Amino acid sequence: MKSQRQYINELRPGQTVNQVFLVREKDLRTTKSGDLYITCTLIDRTGKISARMWQATESIFTAIPTDGFIHVKGRTEEYRGNLQLVIDALRPYPADKVDLSDFTAVTELDVEAMWSELLEILRAVKNKPLRMLIKKFVEDRAMVAGFKKAPAAMEMHNPFVGGLLEHTLKIAQAAQALLPLYPKLNADLVLTGVFLHDIGKIGELTAGTAINYTDRGQLIGHITIAAIWVQEKANLLSAELGEPFPPKTLDLLQHLILSHHGVYEYGSPKLPMIPEAYFLHYLDNLDAKMYMTTHPITNDPDAESTFTSYQRQLGTRLYKGSGELD
Amino acid sequence: MKSQRQYINELRPGQTVNQVFLVREKDLRTTKSGDLYITCTLIDRTGKISARMWQATESIFTAIPTDGFIHVKGRTEEYRGNLQLVIDALRPYPADKVDLSDFTAVTELDVEAMWSELLEILRAVKNKPLRMLIKKFVEDRAMVAGFKKAPAAMEMHNPFVGGLLEHTLKIAQAAQALLPLYPKLNADLVLTGVFLHDIGKIGELTAGTAINYTDRGQLIGHITIAAIWVQEKANLLSAELGEPFPPKTLDLLQHLILSHHGVYEYGSPKLPMIPEAYFLHYLDNLDAKMYMTTHPITNDPDAESTFTSYQRQLGTRLYKGSGELD
Amino acid sequence: MKSQRQYINELRPGQTVNQVFLVREKDLRTTKSGDLYITCTLIDRTGKISARMWQATESIFTAIPTDGFIHVKGRTEEYRGNLQLVIDALRPYPADKVDLSDFTAVTELDVEAMWSELLEILRAVKNKPLRMLIKKFVEDRAMVAGFKKAPAAMEMHNPFVGGLLEHTLKIAQAAQALLPLYPKLNADLVLTGVFLHDIGKIGELTAGTAINYTDRGQLIGHITIAAIWVQEKANLLSAELGEPFPPKTLDLLQHLILSHHGVYEYGSPKLPMIPEAYFLHYLDNLDAKMYMTTHPITNDPDAESTFTSYQRQLGTRLYKGSGELD
Amino acid sequence: MKSQRQYINELRPGQTVNQVFLVREKDLRTTKSGDLYITCTLIDRTGKISARMWQATESIFTAIPTDGFIHVKGRTEEYRGNLQLVIDALRPYPADKVDLSDFTAVTELDVEAMWSELLEILRAVKNKPLRMLIKKFVEDRAMVAGFKKAPAAMEMHNPFVGGLLEHTLKIAQAAQALLPLYPKLNADLVLTGVFLHDIGKIGELTAGTAINYTDRGQLIGHITIAAIWVQEKANLLSAELGEPFPPKTLDLLQHLILSHHGVYEYGSPKLPMIPEAYFLHYLDNLDAKMYMTTHPITNDPDAESTFTSYQRQLGTRLYKGSGELD
Amino acid sequence: MKSQRQYINELRPGQTVNQVFLVREKDLRTTKSGDLYITCTLIDRTGKISARMWQATESIFTAIPTDGFIHVKGRTEEYRGNLQLVIDALRPYPADKVDLSDFTAVTELDVEAMWSELLEILRAVKNKPLRMLIKKFVEDRAMVAGFKKAPAAMEMHNPFVGGLLEHTLKIAQAAQALLPLYPKLNADLVLTGVFLHDIGKIGELTAGTAINYTDRGQLIGHITIAAIWVQEKANLLSAELGEPFPPKTLDLLQHLILSHHGVYEYGSPKLPMIPEAYFLHYLDNLDAKMYMTTHPITNDPDAESTFTSYQRQLGTRLYKGSGELD
Amino acid sequence: MKSQRQYINELRPGQTVNQVFLVREKDLRTTKSGDLYITCTLIDRTGKISARMWQATESIFTAIPTDGFIHVKGRTEEYRGNLQLVIDALRPYPADKVDLSDFTAVTELDVEAMWSELLEILRAVKNKPLRMLIKKFVEDRAMVAGFKKAPAAMEMHNPFVGGLLEHTLKIAQAAQALLPLYPKLNADLVLTGVFLHDIGKIGELTAGTAINYTDRGQLIGHITIAAIWVQEKANLLSAELGEPFPPKTLDLLQHLILSHHGVYEYGSPKLPMIPEAYFLHYLDNLDAKMYMTTHPITNDPDAESTFTSYQRQLGTRLYKGSGELD
Repeated sequence: MKSQRQYINELRPGQTVNQVFLVREKDLRTTKSGDLYITCTLIDRTGKISARMWQATESIFTAIPTDGFIHVKGRTEEYRGNLQLVIDALRPYPADKVDLSDFTAVTELDVEAMWSELLEILRAVKNKPLRMLIKKFVEDRAMVAGFKKAPAAMEMHNPFVGGLLEHTLKIAQAAQALLPLYPKLNADLVLTGVFLHDIGKIGELTAGTAINYTDRGQLIGHITIAAIWVQEKANLLSAELGEPFPPKTLDLLQHLILSHHGVYEYGSPKLPMIPEAYFLHYLDNLDAKMYMTTHPITNDPDAESTFTSYQRQLGTRLYKGSGELD
Repeated sequence: MKSQRQYINELRPGQTVNQVFLVREKDLRTTKSGDLYITCTLIDRTGKISARMWQATESIFTAIPTDGFIHVKGRTEEYRGNLQLVIDALRPYPADKVDLSDFTAVTELDVEAMWSELLEILRAVKNKPLRMLIKKFVEDRAMVAGFKKAPAAMEMHNPFVGGLLEHTLKIAQAAQALLPLYPKLNADLVLTGVFLHDIGKIGELTAGTAINYTDRGQLIGHITIAAIWVQEKANLLSAELGEPFPPKTLDLLQHLILSHHGVYEYGSPKLPMIPEAYFLHYLDNLDAKMYMTTHPITNDPDAESTFTSYQRQLGTRLYKGSGELD
Repeated sequence: MKSQRQYINELRPGQTVNQVFLVREKDLRTTKSGDLYITCTLIDRTGKISARMWQATESIFTAIPTDGFIHVKGRTEEYRGNLQLVIDALRPYPADKVDLSDFTAVTELDVEAMWSELLEILRAVKNKPLRMLIKKFVEDRAMVAGFKKAPAAMEMHNPFVGGLLEHTLKIAQAAQALLPLYPKLNADLVLTGVFLHDIGKIGELTAGTAINYTDRGQLIGHITIAAIWVQEKANLLSAELGEPFPPKTLDLLQHLILSHHGVYEYGSPKLPMIPEAYFLHYLDNLDAKMYMTTHPITNDPDAESTFTSYQRQLGTRLYKGSGELD
Repeated sequence: MKSQRQYINELRPGQTVNQVFLVREKDLRTTKSGDLYITCTLIDRTGKISARMWQATESIFTAIPTDGFIHVKGRTEEYRGNLQLVIDALRPYPADKVDLSDFTAVTELDVEAMWSELLEILRAVKNKPLRMLIKKFVEDRAMVAGFKKAPAAMEMHNPFVGGLLEHTLKIAQAAQALLPLYPKLNADLVLTGVFLHDIGKIGELTAGTAINYTDRGQLIGHITIAAIWVQEKANLLSAELGEPFPPKTLDLLQHLILSHHGVYEYGSPKLPMIPEAYFLHYLDNLDAKMYMTTHPITNDPDAESTFTSYQRQLGTRLYKGSGELD
Repeated sequence: MKSQRQYINELRPGQTVNQVFLVREKDLRTTKSGDLYITCTLIDRTGKISARMWQATESIFTAIPTDGFIHVKGRTEEYRGNLQLVIDALRPYPADKVDLSDFTAVTELDVEAMWSELLEILRAVKNKPLRMLIKKFVEDRAMVAGFKKAPAAMEMHNPFVGGLLEHTLKIAQAAQALLPLYPKLNADLVLTGVFLHDIGKIGELTAGTAINYTDRGQLIGHITIAAIWVQEKANLLSAELGEPFPPKTLDLLQHLILSHHGVYEYGSPKLPMIPEAYFLHYLDNLDAKMYMTTHPITNDPDAESTFTSYQRQLGTRLYKGSGELD
Repeated sequence: MKSQRQYINELRPGQTVNQVFLVREKDLRTTKSGDLYITCTLIDRTGKISARMWQATESIFTAIPTDGFIHVKGRTEEYRGNLQLVIDALRPYPADKVDLSDFTAVTELDVEAMWSELLEILRAVKNKPLRMLIKKFVEDRAMVAGFKKAPAAMEMHNPFVGGLLEHTLKIAQAAQALLPLYPKLNADLVLTGVFLHDIGKIGELTAGTAINYTDRGQLIGHITIAAIWVQEKANLLSAELGEPFPPKTLDLLQHLILSHHGVYEYGSPKLPMIPEAYFLHYLDNLDAKMYMTTHPITNDPDAESTFTSYQRQLGTRLYKGSGELD
């Protein structure tokens, strides 16, 4: 029963723990008085915690699986400002009995509902080539499966299974809400750009029990990957239809993708050159910043302080009390 | 009749001109062959144009008012890539017969309607101290008159009478549209911040037949002016109510104003530290950029080129054809 | 007797310690062999030191006050390159018997003498509105009390009670010394600017047993706080005198405050635009740098090295031997 | 006979001119005394010069073709520090009688010889997939034709027909010369990368009587265009061979292209992550800088000065005398 | 009689002129109606002005010396916002009859008095090696002659004969005034550093009728030149005394010179690493900024505006009214 | 026998160790249970490792030399991700029995052979003054001895005895290989510049069992040191020959040295102003980067990962697999 589990991000010092964890980085060491002890890292989908087992034996150590699951009994304590778990007893736990969702960070929203809503918004695209291009992506099963699973980023924002979809949908909703205010914008271009701007993340990141860059992700990057995929789908359409995909439309769509980070320093090889590109850039940035500000405030471990710790990506600490005025 | 006027931004080489202009920078000079000629600048609300009158006399020159109006007959021609107007005849024109709206750049929208709509949106603010503070501003007649007249910027965006209101309303509408997507935000704080974030522009810029910085605007800047005005209104409320304006609410509102340029380099003495400040910063930036991109595209003088000239503020040229796909 | 105390910044490894400390962050932990031990931080006005007490009991731990004082017997030793104190015995110590000056970093100079000297220098101001404004500040008892107590900065320079006064006086003296060399400067403006440039620090920082930012300090900053206070005092004068405080004088004084960090990157919303602002900026910077260089050199813990450790704020290490030539 | 032509970059004040030019930007104007005159720009492959014809008539003006050729008689003179040509007589000149090579800047080297030498160097590539990929490009006739015609840059270096080939060959020769010094490098990857790193210039720039960006060049850029072309050729090979092109090889080759500008600021969406990428980046940069320094020195118009004018791209003036020591 | 001369920076439109000027850049041109006219630049020590002579002849043109003097009769007028001088008559003027001080910008202060005062201040140096080093420089006649003649900079500050001395003396006075406030500083090192910090300007700049960089100045720079000169004088002393100049003293003195620009971006190859280097850097910077702010304010040609034109080096316009309050 | 030694960079967890190490930073501490233990750092030419000896005595501790050698028996284990050595027994070891080459990082190449090859390449210099200058350096025995011993850098590249020579020779070879491709370059200047560009490293760094900056190195830097040395040798030649060393040649050679870091930010007080300076800058940079990329890839401790750890100097991680394609 999921509700009985104590998630790692809810643990406080002095608690008794009795449940299954994913285990990593196990190590057998000698204390100064010559006794053996074990160190390892315990993981669930909400985070990780260092653990130690004193008075250990080699056979206990050997029994711990590499990158597998163990049932742990023990208690938490604070050590040098961090929580750690002191293990009293442990035993290996079969992976097939584990509820995997306890060990993978996933969106809290309904993936299929989000996907449907995104498609619904995209239905507003009137331009035929763009509609056909969207269709090519939507009919690519592997692509769609990847889209539903990919995180939006490695660490910065929405770093969990389904994060890409959550982030893309939010921007699509924001675009839908703001387009009436800026009627000069080409809404078809904007919406298609929103849909595809981060799709390269599917090839850049892998998400399992941890999010990692693929080699291609590190060497090429999601921006270029997306530009290439759009090219490939357009080539496919051209081949099928026997006439070239409209070149200007293709240029503009790829331009939206290439420029959506807004400045060179963040890996965009092109600055935005059309209003639609600025529009996409700001909505993308806004949604990322909403995560990057509300998430640290909500999850700040120090209940006393009125400010969070320093947020390197923002260059500042965050004030936690704006939600409620005096 | 306004519709018969040829506005300066509509003139093309080879046209006959016969109408009233604001005149500035008049100068009497000698040609190489010893004849006198007059140079001056003619202005209306859409721009300015250099003019010359050959075969002039001192009495014609003297008749031209300093910073007044003249009726001009002449024709346009291109000179070194710029349009200039060759005057055949001119006579002074009484200022009181002039339709002043022809000579002042003003918003094309209905100022009173915009003001009402802004107030309507602000009605959503529930927090009592913020409501009272808004009321203090709305009841300050000089402030409201200034708000309706001020431009949003000297050159960058909405540089015309009513520009501040136009810009503020647009952000308010955008905030209204997006707040439902980000329910964790304090909507009262956001809306009050939107209303007041650029109000210091009233003290920073003067708008008449041209927009200029005030000395205080240059030395202090609209950001600090706005923070001071908010302080003064809050002090006033405190005095009236006999209890201090809630200090945290005041801090947060002033923080929104101080941080809304987002980075130090653009004159914000504080980086955004609350989600609401990022939200305001991005909507503000988005609206400015929409003007800064669509305006040069719409007004680009070169009909042939697919790109505008270099836009220094954006660091790039703009592509003019995104409105229509192929 | 103060002279008998061993201050924390004077402790060296291997010393016996027998005196009172402020204690913080106490923690009861278990060693690997199951024994209890206590960790805590001991503080006096010269710094802090980690301490451990082995073979502890719960009753000893309970007896240690939270944020109070204990009498400690023990010895110092080096641990991982840092000094730590091993406690042999401890007992709580009544706060009212403590010499509080041992536990608060304060200027080593005479506060009242500095204040008098500052007022003496300000007497040179001839301009009447500026004299009256200075008077308004000097007659504000809370303001003066704050001025005498505030530190000049959180960490960078003069981070102790009285630091603001020490720093301000030094700049005032420097201004007095250099003004004759630059007779074109408006000395009245310079001196008033020196007096008030950092006065917002009173509202930005609190100084007790540790220096901290106030919430308002973090959200608004001392630069804007000072500009607001100057406005409020000027408004007060205007009300009392029945005529507005001279607006240009007010603009220039606020400009001095707003621009005294010299560049946007350091939080000045305005660049210096008058010679007096550059003058203030350089004297301010010079005095801060004199502290930031001589302090690490004087307090460098490593007697062997000819260079200090890397000084992040300066981007370099400092050479310690310039005081004495070969 | 080519040798009899006076090229524009060889004209000096006071010369008689009697030959054909490409003409652009023609304009009919009125002098202050009411006479008509014509202004236009005359062009050959070495540069352009402003020209004026006094005492003109409308029929002369009409006879001048738009973007065509005219035979001109006149003389040069200096005007405001620039040379200009005063036209005494002119007549339209049929385009089909013109030696087009007089009007297009082209490499001074033998294009076919350079192409052969480049292919010869590429023959050293041993890795089979890379050999096949190179072959795909070499067999693409349009690509090869473009490669031989494209300039290396719009203005910065080798801005002439054949410039891309000249630049690419030089880097290939440099790589060939230096690879023995760095035996750890993967020479196959380096050479293939050298060949393809700038191939996107073919799609980015058009070169005729002037070099211009294509719309796709401005919106997408040669770096992404090249990455896409490599992808398309690899896809083609995969389809032909029935097995995927080796993915790691593809990743690395695209990485070389994407990172060859070395830093984000110059439009590389990825920093170099393999030694081969740094190697390519420095050889590319070196060859560009050799052009950017020797060209202004050789072509400096001021024979007196020991320094060239300020070179914006280099941030400095260049000293002209390093070729010969004292 | 000097007082009767109208200096160029005092000329206003509409004045009659009848005096000698230095002439440069003479040019003979044809008007549109075929007449000859002459353009040239007239120069005195306060600036330069464009001049034209209509109805000229080749013999008049030939009579004008290249880089010599002419007596001019004419009148001033405004042309495109700049003043120009229309010459009615001119004749060559013998250089030996000219008062050269009218044509060379020089300090307005007494050079010998400044030099004496500087030496007087340097007398405070107690350290023997530094005293001997100073003596070596003071006894070097060519060096001293150069010191008295050199400008302090090409354009930025004190760009006139004697400017180096004026600038150095001012910093020496400032150091003398401030050293008592910072008793931890090594005053000997500071004063010697002040004396020598810019001495390389003697080799970097030549000052005659115009200030120019020497080739060595451009290629090596005054900072390295000064470091080398100090080395050479120290080597000389070592040779004379038969023992090495104290190496640490030499290191520190050269360090002061190398780091006095404060940051790498301004050409310092080393950041300041001793308090004395920061002290020198700020006093140097302060004195330069005092010139760079008061000079444009004093010399602003537009009497109406309250701000100067944009000062590129400062990144801002300057407010002209701080000298007098309201 | 060298081959039997286990070098520190080859140790893996769980190995038995029985050999001599250089020892530093010894420390005697008390465990939580009151026992004494020793910590120290063990060093050989391939790196260093932390070591601990439990159950120690004061006499063992006293026996360990300060900065001398000990014979150690023990075993390795992993502790917090780092290897450490647990000492079972130790005894002091006489320095004169030690093979010093085991404890000093030195080039793996033949120093004398490299030196000969460098001189051979320099023989190509034809310009007589440059030949004589090179000879002056080559005949300076202390200089040559230093050149053969100096490292190329403290940490970044070639940080070992002989590194300067290895680096200089490689650039000389590269220059030799590329000069034929750029015939406009002054090869004599290039080769002399290559030889001397980093010679100041001899005075900047000391290399023994560890590489350190000299005080002069930190305060003055190798760039200025080299410029001074070139000056001194040129002065010497001038004195010997009775005529000045050709000043332009000297300027250019010093310019090459001063500008070889390419940008101010890296400590060059001058930007490159001649093609030869850019050529030297890029070859220098290329060789440094080849070390900085291949070295971390070759020595990456994590056999599993496809990327190295983050390389701060390069701003990225490196991909380890480019040597072998798929």
